[in-house]
Amino acid sequence: MGHVVVDVMLKSEILDPQGQAVAGALPRLGFEQFTDVRQGKRFVLEVEGDVTEAHLAAARDAAGKLLSNPVIEDVVSVHDLADEDAR
Amino acid sequence: MGHVVVDVMLKSEILDPQGQAVAGALPRLGFEQFTDVRQGKRFVLEVEGDVTEAHLAAARDAAGKLLSNPVIEDVVSVHDLADEDAR
Repeated sequence: MGHVVVDVMLKSEILDPQGQAVAGALPRLGFEQFTDVRQGKRFVLEVEGDVTEAHLAAARDAAGKLLSNPVIEDVVSVHDLADEDAR
Repeated sequence: MGHVVVDVMLKSEILDPQGQAVAGALPRLGFEQFTDVRQGKRFVLEVEGDVTEAHLAAARDAAGKLLSNPVIEDVVSVHDLADEDAR
């Protein structure tokens, strides 16, 4: 089994109340290092066998059509989960 | 400005109704390649200057205390956004 990761974030000009709520709570827990917080979505799509370029292309297509709202969101990454281990 | 990314997913044994809703919708849009979908959260925490190990350590701490519910969620990644370009 392979997995494709799709990361979706709100466009930078869009207000992010969830992110602001987290940003407001962090200092109360003693975390002063973070000047802003944005919250988005992470999808993990399972495929049979290893991830192929065709899987990635389909995931990009699905990301634009279903996993994100192009008016307010950007698809910031579509990648093979296995590549995250390469970081 | 630097950015730390925190990825949070539901534990595998936890039912994911949002992921199932997406998994059910994909075939109706012609996407037959994906056998399962899990949906989680992606946080981008902004810091002043470049991301340091201290920032990453604080983000790991904040991820456990505020950004995730350890009973049902796992923090699957805490990393410098710049490392995503290395993929």
